[in-house]
Amino acid sequence: MSENKKSIAILGSTGSIGTQALKVIEKHSVDFTIFVLSCNKNYQLLYQQAVLFKPKHVVINSKEGYHFLKKHLANSNTAVSMGESALCGVVKESEIDLVLTAIVGSAGLLPTISAITAKKTIALANKETLVVAGKLIMALAKKNNVSIVPVDSEHSAIFQCLIGEKNHTVNKLILTASGGPFLNLKASDFNQISVKDALNHPNWDMGAKISIDSATLMNKGFELIEARWLFDVSEKNIDVIIHPQSIIHSLVEFIDGSVKAQLGLPSMTIPILYALFHPNRSKHPISEFNLSKIKDLTFFEPDKFKFPHLQLAYDCLKKGGSAGCSLNAANEIAIEAFLNKKITFLNMIKLIEKSLEKSIFVSDPSIEDYINIDLDTRQKTIELISSL
Amino acid sequence: MSENKKSIAILGSTGSIGTQALKVIEKHSVDFTIFVLSCNKNYQLLYQQAVLFKPKHVVINSKEGYHFLKKHLANSNTAVSMGESALCGVVKESEIDLVLTAIVGSAGLLPTISAITAKKTIALANKETLVVAGKLIMALAKKNNVSIVPVDSEHSAIFQCLIGEKNHTVNKLILTASGGPFLNLKASDFNQISVKDALNHPNWDMGAKISIDSATLMNKGFELIEARWLFDVSEKNIDVIIHPQSIIHSLVEFIDGSVKAQLGLPSMTIPILYALFHPNRSKHPISEFNLSKIKDLTFFEPDKFKFPHLQLAYDCLKKGGSAGCSLNAANEIAIEAFLNKKITFLNMIKLIEKSLEKSIFVSDPSIEDYINIDLDTRQKTIELISSL
Repeated sequence: MSENKKSIAILGSTGSIGTQALKVIEKHSVDFTIFVLSCNKNYQLLYQQAVLFKPKHVVINSKEGYHFLKKHLANSNTAVSMGESALCGVVKESEIDLVLTAIVGSAGLLPTISAITAKKTIALANKETLVVAGKLIMALAKKNNVSIVPVDSEHSAIFQCLIGEKNHTVNKLILTASGGPFLNLKASDFNQISVKDALNHPNWDMGAKISIDSATLMNKGFELIEARWLFDVSEKNIDVIIHPQSIIHSLVEFIDGSVKAQLGLPSMTIPILYALFHPNRSKHPISEFNLSKIKDLTFFEPDKFKFPHLQLAYDCLKKGGSAGCSLNAANEIAIEAFLNKKITFLNMIKLIEKSLEKSIFVSDPSIEDYINIDLDTRQKTIELISSL
Repeated sequence: MSENKKSIAILGSTGSIGTQALKVIEKHSVDFTIFVLSCNKNYQLLYQQAVLFKPKHVVINSKEGYHFLKKHLANSNTAVSMGESALCGVVKESEIDLVLTAIVGSAGLLPTISAITAKKTIALANKETLVVAGKLIMALAKKNNVSIVPVDSEHSAIFQCLIGEKNHTVNKLILTASGGPFLNLKASDFNQISVKDALNHPNWDMGAKISIDSATLMNKGFELIEARWLFDVSEKNIDVIIHPQSIIHSLVEFIDGSVKAQLGLPSMTIPILYALFHPNRSKHPISEFNLSKIKDLTFFEPDKFKFPHLQLAYDCLKKGGSAGCSLNAANEIAIEAFLNKKITFLNMIKLIEKSLEKSIFVSDPSIEDYINIDLDTRQKTIELISSL
């Protein structure tokens, strides 16, 4: 768009990552211009963002929001459109350099595929895309010679550790996990976990869905799947370690025994900044990083009994095919049911396991298969809620 | 030499780094061939190494050793020579690809200069070279387009963190220090430290001189100076932090707030391996690195009162010119005097400070200046011993 400015599309601009990315971009207006902003339903915030950043397009998923934006942006240069297929079209526009996919859940899949097909660099903040269809997405990215730069702090850490290194020299990836709010809760108290408890993450300020995923460690399971596809490393060579301080964001062990890590205070600003500026780095005002103030970094093995979601993710990754797609769909329904107080915290894993038993399995799924299996699993999971 | 094998010269092959390097090379005989081995006095070991590795040249510093090797290697293809100027000639031979400088102390200076002038890649295990003449050495390396790959674990860590990164994106280097054997000793007990106490390092198995330097933290001061020149970062942007477990070997903070670190069990094998194989990495049998077994990494500020050597190194670096050369010379004499029980542990810093007051200062020294100042400072330091 403008000379030398990176032109950005943010899919999911009103969410946690989207708003933080816009804060970064606001501070670096010399480097970036906003071409697309999209969200699901929060049209009030999208409107404010559109006024401030003057994108060429805003895309929203709700009729109410669409009409509001149409009316209030009528005298601007921002075009308003609605729905997934409009979004899939808009991300292909030639002016866009980088698409930040910060949509939550499997809704990120089709717009990401569309952006990759149009050869846009992807800043990937939607882990479900790779959980659902990692093999297909990475093959598509390779075919289109597209870089996928992760925004998840763990994957950004690994990505940064691998800069300048050769893929065949990687021995192991080590994902760190804060352990979430229930790390030290006795197993016998898990049946009393409330929605409020589960939303209260000790280190990271995130959206509701990912906060619950962090509480169950499903988030780490998804990150395991994401890492497997992003870095082309077998699940046998990916470890998860609990690190409650969230200072070491993840590590890479090389074949010569050397280990590299990326560290920082727990803030999504750093990985967002990295993904936006990649392959460069840019000066940014940051809180002081001082290990002597942090003092202590601790590590231990995850408790598989208390957190069965993690093992389930390993199992789905091992099974391959459409297993990750079903896992993600069942998990989204389970979280929704928990947030709406229809099921307990402990019943989330039961619901997901029951659903996986009944879901369709395809060993080498197409995009259409993924869409069908996603829908089918969701429906089956909803039906199973009453059986718990 | 042989097709596709890296041909190596090891200066200081009988010392701690030299012997560990030869162990690595023995396990990777497909990749390396030994062209030169040299040592100061330990001719018995040098002889054994020569029989095993069949170098084209061995160089020794003692007459006794020279005659022994001449006699016992008479029927081999290994040429024997003696003294520094012979070594300076031999390292220039065209067959050599990489020179590992593992000589202790300022004796490493001239052979290193000779190797750089002959455009040999340097694996630098002699930190005194950069302490004495960092500015000159790095300018020479740049002029000759020579890579200097550090073998010190801290500098190897920083070097590895900088792979694929751009120099202008570095905000700060953070050197970790184990704190040595007297980290938790009360200041009031420092006057009772024996030679045996000081040689007993908690994490690293090293030679005598570097063990004493670790006990006083002069080693960290030297590493600070080394880092300043190796990575062209001002001393204001280099921090030292105490990390008793020696698992994080050092860190780099970038301008965007991201921090990278290199980690590993405390073993010199990893940085030696890295320097030998650079720019590649090679599979090597290593002890398992498991953070959940290590459990705890701690960090705190160094105690400048108990360890004045560190501040002295900062001051010398700030002063520039020949200050580092005098610091190193006075320190070598002080350690020798301590090891020979002529002075106490606490008197080492007094001796060095007195010596620095009297030593010649040149702001932009030539090689000849360095040699003269080195000799002059040593002599003055020896004379000062009796005044303590």
